[in-house]
Amino acid sequence: MLQSQLFTKTKKESPKDEVSNNAKLLIRGGYINKEMSGVYSYLPLGLMVLNNVIDIIRQEMNKIGGQEVLMGSLQDPSIWQKTDRWSDEKVDIWFKSRLNAGGEVGLANTHEEPMVMMMKDHVNSYKDLPIYTYQFQNKFRNELRAKSGIMRTREFIMKDLYSFSTSQEQLDEFYESVKQAYVNIFNRCGIGEKTYVTFASGGIFSKFSHEFQTLCEAGEDTIYVSEEKHMAINQEVYNDQVLKDLGLEKKDLVEKKSIEVGNIFKLGTKYANALGLTYADQQGKKQDVVMGSYGIGPGRLMGTIVELNSEENKITWPKQIAPFDVHIIGVNLEDEKVAMKAKEEYDKLTASGKKVLFDDRENTSAGQKFADADLIGISERIIIGKNSL
Amino acid sequence: MLQSQLFTKTKKESPKDEVSNNAKLLIRGGYINKEMSGVYSYLPLGLMVLNNVIDIIRQEMNKIGGQEVLMGSLQDPSIWQKTDRWSDEKVDIWFKSRLNAGGEVGLANTHEEPMVMMMKDHVNSYKDLPIYTYQFQNKFRNELRAKSGIMRTREFIMKDLYSFSTSQEQLDEFYESVKQAYVNIFNRCGIGEKTYVTFASGGIFSKFSHEFQTLCEAGEDTIYVSEEKHMAINQEVYNDQVLKDLGLEKKDLVEKKSIEVGNIFKLGTKYANALGLTYADQQGKKQDVVMGSYGIGPGRLMGTIVELNSEENKITWPKQIAPFDVHIIGVNLEDEKVAMKAKEEYDKLTASGKKVLFDDRENTSAGQKFADADLIGISERIIIGKNSL
Repeated sequence: MLQSQLFTKTKKESPKDEVSNNAKLLIRGGYINKEMSGVYSYLPLGLMVLNNVIDIIRQEMNKIGGQEVLMGSLQDPSIWQKTDRWSDEKVDIWFKSRLNAGGEVGLANTHEEPMVMMMKDHVNSYKDLPIYTYQFQNKFRNELRAKSGIMRTREFIMKDLYSFSTSQEQLDEFYESVKQAYVNIFNRCGIGEKTYVTFASGGIFSKFSHEFQTLCEAGEDTIYVSEEKHMAINQEVYNDQVLKDLGLEKKDLVEKKSIEVGNIFKLGTKYANALGLTYADQQGKKQDVVMGSYGIGPGRLMGTIVELNSEENKITWPKQIAPFDVHIIGVNLEDEKVAMKAKEEYDKLTASGKKVLFDDRENTSAGQKFADADLIGISERIIIGKNSL
Repeated sequence: MLQSQLFTKTKKESPKDEVSNNAKLLIRGGYINKEMSGVYSYLPLGLMVLNNVIDIIRQEMNKIGGQEVLMGSLQDPSIWQKTDRWSDEKVDIWFKSRLNAGGEVGLANTHEEPMVMMMKDHVNSYKDLPIYTYQFQNKFRNELRAKSGIMRTREFIMKDLYSFSTSQEQLDEFYESVKQAYVNIFNRCGIGEKTYVTFASGGIFSKFSHEFQTLCEAGEDTIYVSEEKHMAINQEVYNDQVLKDLGLEKKDLVEKKSIEVGNIFKLGTKYANALGLTYADQQGKKQDVVMGSYGIGPGRLMGTIVELNSEENKITWPKQIAPFDVHIIGVNLEDEKVAMKAKEEYDKLTASGKKVLFDDRENTSAGQKFADADLIGISERIIIGKNSL
């Protein structure tokens, strides 16, 4: 792409009300735009990065048998009442609205309920299971505060995967394959080393659930890390009993700030039972379907990557998720020979299948171009000027 | 893909409260699921078709210089108040909600306002223009009635394109290129012949806007069609003066029901002026940016295609948007030789780059498989049974 064609401009300053590093840099680089507190739009460069992250996640979901769907945001209260998740006392982050035709609707903050209702039409027998469905879908959360840039927003795309199994054993097996898929995803996004499988509260269904926590000073969570074993414990379950269960000792653990980049839950039969999702077992007896749910927010992941790979005026994207493979920076383009040489290089690399951003802007100083390239953050750069000839 | 792996099942019946043909067939084929009135989810086959439609639109938008972005659904009332589109008296399809942090938010039913606000950060001079941005983004419309299946829903993905130009001439030129891109899109989706560029009300900015109306008995619109000139007039502007303006005579026009599958508007400076989006012209003088907006709903397009290409128990997708290129139907698969032959064919076609659905289901009769294949609607079918050996 020719940079002269890109409509976004880099900025020297970020909005005054923006406190997070990731949003400051992404706004300055022309990646995102702040629409209101907790709501950002993705500009062309930002959407390219977001889609690269999404593609990696999609590939790993398909590898473990996931089938992609896309559900609605608008939610029928009646199904959430059945699971006791409609009232604002129980779930305090609903956005609710009035339906002109009468009644209320909610904006989905997660999708267990409609996913179960949909599945009732497609599950009859144990032969139909297991089923794994996932989506990249907008979630809405009516957060009181939203100060972490794209790491915690009121509206965000989430990859949510749901598993439907006949038994706890079938769930456990899939749960482990999701854990591995998540490790792959964070590795491929370049944050694998700093990301820890973290023991967190399992709620009423199992002793633990697992979070994927990435070490980061800007994080909202506190975890206790064993670097040696590459595992961690969330503060919420950090006690002597848990340490004993996990065979860890206090002296081997270090307290760190972190960002939750993914989580996986065993749900058991809670939702299937409340909403009547059953299957006939080999004896023809009705059984409740055993479920799990597994989330990753691609936007939060993108924000985390920025937090970990940036300096004051500079982003350095991991190659796999950079908006372009190569950034050609043309200087002295008023010299026809230089301009021709730069264009040749751009055409050659593009023809070879590389995604190339070519800074072909005229009337822009070399210094400005380098500063912009730092903000845009494509690590492979080719500078073409008089000296290159 | 192996059909035995697909979690969706076809159905003999559609939900009793569903009146539209497109939704009935798509639900029965396992393409979509009805979540509530006016809200549908896309199941794997449905998402494949929707993505094929989206890909065609995206390609045509990129060809005319569109740059893809993704904006938020949650809307800040203050900017909509400035254009006088916030009050329910003016716009009666808002979904509004309370923000826990205080104040109200709306759910976007279109995006002129936030798009203009975003552009204020990136437009300074006439040299920055024209700019064309588009997105595939969820829109929310609080419709009183929703009886047309996926052709009119309360929540739907829209491709909305916005143009930002220095002058009416620059706008006019781009407007014509969008018109051609839309013709290409509808041709590529297989409904070109039945789709008419239709003169409709231009509002306060221009004599006409243009709609793309597809002839269809299930349509909500009435248009007057000149088959010879392949153009039409919307009922709302069908009068003697307009006929004269367009050089048409009543006797050459036929009244038809139709579906609006796209529309293009010249907006002039209304939104730029209300929100302060200006550029400095060659003399350094501030001028309002001249805008256009251009919409297509991929879901409505998909629904229209079903209405036009279906019979009682049967869909026939145009090749370009079918979920798969080929449907292999294996019968007598209990015969090992047949099973092997079918698998060979599946592997061969898949290796050649075709997208293939292989009905490998055991314990399903040939009759059931043919009935399912009719509902799924992939036009190229290969039947492999004992006779094929």
